[in-house]
Amino acid sequence: MQVYEAPIRDMRFVLDELHEDDGFGNVEGFEDFDGDMTAAILEEANKLCRDVLLPLNWPGDQQGCRIENGVVRTPDGFPEAYRQFCEGGWASLSVDPKWGGQGAPHALAKMVEEMSCSTNLSFGLYPGLTGGAMVSLEAYGSEDQKNFYLPRMANGEWSGTMCLTESHCGTDLGLLRTKAEPQEDGSYLVTGNKIFISAGDHDLTDNIVHLVLARLPDAPAGVKGISMFLVPKYLPKDDGSLGDRNAAQATAIEHKMGLKASATCQMSFDGAKGWLVGKPNKGLEAMFAMMNTERVAVGIQGLGVGEIAYQSAVYYAKDRLQGRSLSGVKNPDGPADPIIVHPDVRRMLMTMRAYNEGCRAVTAWVSRALDAEHASPEPEVRERAKDFVALMTPVVKALFTDLGHESAQLAIQVHGGHGYIQETGIEQFARDARIAQIYEGANGIQALDLVGRKLPDRMGRNLRSFFHPVSQYLEDNAGDENIGKMIGSLQQSFGALQLSTGHIAQKGLKDPEEAGAAAYDYLHLLGFVAMGYCFAKAAQIAHLKLAEGTDDEAFYKAKIATAQFFFDRLLPPATARFMAITSGKSSMMAMPEDAF
Amino acid sequence: MQVYEAPIRDMRFVLDELHEDDGFGNVEGFEDFDGDMTAAILEEANKLCRDVLLPLNWPGDQQGCRIENGVVRTPDGFPEAYRQFCEGGWASLSVDPKWGGQGAPHALAKMVEEMSCSTNLSFGLYPGLTGGAMVSLEAYGSEDQKNFYLPRMANGEWSGTMCLTESHCGTDLGLLRTKAEPQEDGSYLVTGNKIFISAGDHDLTDNIVHLVLARLPDAPAGVKGISMFLVPKYLPKDDGSLGDRNAAQATAIEHKMGLKASATCQMSFDGAKGWLVGKPNKGLEAMFAMMNTERVAVGIQGLGVGEIAYQSAVYYAKDRLQGRSLSGVKNPDGPADPIIVHPDVRRMLMTMRAYNEGCRAVTAWVSRALDAEHASPEPEVRERAKDFVALMTPVVKALFTDLGHESAQLAIQVHGGHGYIQETGIEQFARDARIAQIYEGANGIQALDLVGRKLPDRMGRNLRSFFHPVSQYLEDNAGDENIGKMIGSLQQSFGALQLSTGHIAQKGLKDPEEAGAAAYDYLHLLGFVAMGYCFAKAAQIAHLKLAEGTDDEAFYKAKIATAQFFFDRLLPPATARFMAITSGKSSMMAMPEDAF
Repeated sequence: MQVYEAPIRDMRFVLDELHEDDGFGNVEGFEDFDGDMTAAILEEANKLCRDVLLPLNWPGDQQGCRIENGVVRTPDGFPEAYRQFCEGGWASLSVDPKWGGQGAPHALAKMVEEMSCSTNLSFGLYPGLTGGAMVSLEAYGSEDQKNFYLPRMANGEWSGTMCLTESHCGTDLGLLRTKAEPQEDGSYLVTGNKIFISAGDHDLTDNIVHLVLARLPDAPAGVKGISMFLVPKYLPKDDGSLGDRNAAQATAIEHKMGLKASATCQMSFDGAKGWLVGKPNKGLEAMFAMMNTERVAVGIQGLGVGEIAYQSAVYYAKDRLQGRSLSGVKNPDGPADPIIVHPDVRRMLMTMRAYNEGCRAVTAWVSRALDAEHASPEPEVRERAKDFVALMTPVVKALFTDLGHESAQLAIQVHGGHGYIQETGIEQFARDARIAQIYEGANGIQALDLVGRKLPDRMGRNLRSFFHPVSQYLEDNAGDENIGKMIGSLQQSFGALQLSTGHIAQKGLKDPEEAGAAAYDYLHLLGFVAMGYCFAKAAQIAHLKLAEGTDDEAFYKAKIATAQFFFDRLLPPATARFMAITSGKSSMMAMPEDAF
Repeated sequence: MQVYEAPIRDMRFVLDELHEDDGFGNVEGFEDFDGDMTAAILEEANKLCRDVLLPLNWPGDQQGCRIENGVVRTPDGFPEAYRQFCEGGWASLSVDPKWGGQGAPHALAKMVEEMSCSTNLSFGLYPGLTGGAMVSLEAYGSEDQKNFYLPRMANGEWSGTMCLTESHCGTDLGLLRTKAEPQEDGSYLVTGNKIFISAGDHDLTDNIVHLVLARLPDAPAGVKGISMFLVPKYLPKDDGSLGDRNAAQATAIEHKMGLKASATCQMSFDGAKGWLVGKPNKGLEAMFAMMNTERVAVGIQGLGVGEIAYQSAVYYAKDRLQGRSLSGVKNPDGPADPIIVHPDVRRMLMTMRAYNEGCRAVTAWVSRALDAEHASPEPEVRERAKDFVALMTPVVKALFTDLGHESAQLAIQVHGGHGYIQETGIEQFARDARIAQIYEGANGIQALDLVGRKLPDRMGRNLRSFFHPVSQYLEDNAGDENIGKMIGSLQQSFGALQLSTGHIAQKGLKDPEEAGAAAYDYLHLLGFVAMGYCFAKAAQIAHLKLAEGTDDEAFYKAKIATAQFFFDRLLPPATARFMAITSGKSSMMAMPEDAF
């Protein structure tokens, strides 16, 4: 059974307690979002997600989307839920009030995002894509475009898409063929076919704003000849009312492994009218503004699914009676003990729990930086925050989605045969989560982004925004009486990360394939060190709270237990990736192609 | 695209070259199965699997099974394919000629099994279950039962099932409720409901022989009161022709994540006529004879899916053009290079390849022992073989299925978005493979079987059948000029395994939860040491062959490259499980139940 209650206590912990000393400060402009307000928003979001989105999750998977006379229909209940979602202001929680948004900090909005990803990943994609498109428009659109489109997207009345992929090119956008012909009125006619377009068509909004990558007639070949166009489904009149249907049509819905309630469309643009966004041939840059936001969002999808997978597995493990505890009967009145008594079931539950808490802690850290990057009054802080976000974006995207999928698989395993049956609703988590490791740049591409771009950038400056606080922390707390052993273990992993970084810097400079061969393991190692740092800090705070007395003992004790599990069980194998990283590319590249 | 060609060269390597010195000898009675005969059988099996079973694999997943007026229909083409399968004698390859089988060695039959698991896992379950039921009947049935049923099952005319699970009990069979009432004619009336019954009903055979676990009226509670009954779908007359329909009915087909062409049934036994197999209240023992065979078979399912996932990913990686090689353009005439040039794609392909070759090598080792256990002329060898099979059965089941599923997931990742689309046929591998980690005892149960039963059994004697040859090999080859580094690395992992074994033996004796907490990581560590041992031997053989000259250079060079990748990239993280194992149970069991 899919069960969910937002982990508000932990969300508040990572928002309010864990990162106070991260140097990103308290950002101006968020004065309205104090502790009470944050708590109220999280409570309200939980209600909506638990009571409205979750009940549609499994039925949506079973029903899927359908295309009827060229119109895409979402599953029963989705349009109504979307209306509630927008009326509650959830579509624009972190959007600038200038465009009608609520102006909440990203750090808070990401927690709400986690909830919708937990309870209905397919649903979340519709407003999620709109949010991404707004980021791109805000950064690169003209004043007229922004004033006209952003308010209508912020309130959820219109939605957005990103139309990049064509059947022959996904990762390698340089190959794309869609064309845009300039017209005398300053508009363009866009022609081409796109695939894998999330929310490409649906029945939730009156209009859809497609951001389409295409080539101008005189464009240079490759990635330097790509421009971005705004192509609405309906051509709006000046007053915002809808005019003619544009020649932008969903021709089919993809049949996917999961995420079936999200309409992934094949789109045909057949001389569709559009307008240039940003400069000619600079479309990739504009699209990347959106992609980076989306990449963090996709990481949170992994966390979201991981959380509901954990909660559902816990529910089952407490409910399902099989066998007896190895340390003596625990449920003498029942025919057997609940399976949560078994160490191996604990191993799975604790693994999921540690992944979720670790990812949530890192999310809060990164999204605090996201806020500081945009709104800190201090230029030095803004710079450092920007470096940190740049570094961590691929880590959040790839690591969180790998771990979220792993958690979903563990939830199936906890359920045994019942996890493999559709009616239980558990296998859906794994099928849904799986796409997050692929879209917005497959995880291998994220790893390449990390080692190929983010590390060497400005002589490693991005990395320093992460290494400095960690090494400082290790130095300051080496002898901590409560968490000394954790610090020692973290020190070891951090050392492995430093050596790995040196290996990549040195070997990769001469031979980029050496960096490529190390990339994936390196991303995981870095991510685990980041989680380990957060867990050490969390355990330290918990020890202090318990020492000074708190009415929330259970929470802080559980935090220490989870941290201890992470250091005992999860960090060592991640640290051993050091061996794989430094083994170099030779064994990976040795085999001639035709020997495969 | 699902592509497949049986890896016959590697199969012949593990059958003929790799394990010559394993001490299990050349078993008598298999003289007909010399090298030429083996090659011919593998070639024929490849043709059937590639040309008949594979084309039905994806359509079978899409169509699934259906229940029409109480009768289960398999997907189009399955009945005809089953007929071909049986006519070719494949249903009884390793069955005793006494019952009409071909009498081939298990070692050979397991390779053929791998092929059918690769090309159509759902299909393979129908004859697979029959094979398991025959093992149980052969060991525990009366002479009359054997003479009557086994020949009809060996030729595939009738099929078999194992009916264990009820909705409230899977792992904990002590809870089962199905009842058997003795009748005056010596038969029993069986009444109860079973779920998750593979091949519970279908249209491939005239009759189905259900082996049903149930309780006699005076049976003691728990596992000591379970008996096994033979309950045919149609009550056969003395001449084998079919009489009345028995009250054993499929009431529904489960809706599963995958394996959709395999009819997994809910079964209702409503006073169905049956006969006791073996002794009263000893049904679990009889069922376990079948379960152990099935567990090895399920491990091979993991390997089979891993192999086709690998081949399909290689096909795509050579075909798909995206981006350019980091070491210079490789496909100057094309718009981009094939993605197999990218190190991270290589990482995925090599991982799958190493898993498959490692598992196949261990399969050959274990199934040679299976043959020796049953047919070696030397009692000492039979004993040692039995110990080794007992030890390795849970390892083969759990490790191979974990790795097979991981390979299927990697194949999706290599395919990017196209891997997530159903039409490509790749995501099916992951959905199909997933069940193998669960059924026939979830992998966590296998790990408990390993540390709780197989290790302590007779003061660790099972383990010695594995530790002795490995430590002897390490001692003999420490200074090997070709594979010295591999030996060093294996030595380290083996040391970690020895220390882990000591930890479990010592701590687990006082506190079984300590053994339970270590079990899963220990199983993986042991399995990786077994694969490492096989890879070291394989690389050594390959070096010798290359030195003395061979017309198969490419094969032996590739074997060395794969072994090197295994030691560089895969063994170190597995070895690091030592840290998790020895961290003990405390962090796993610390959290009070209500803190989850």
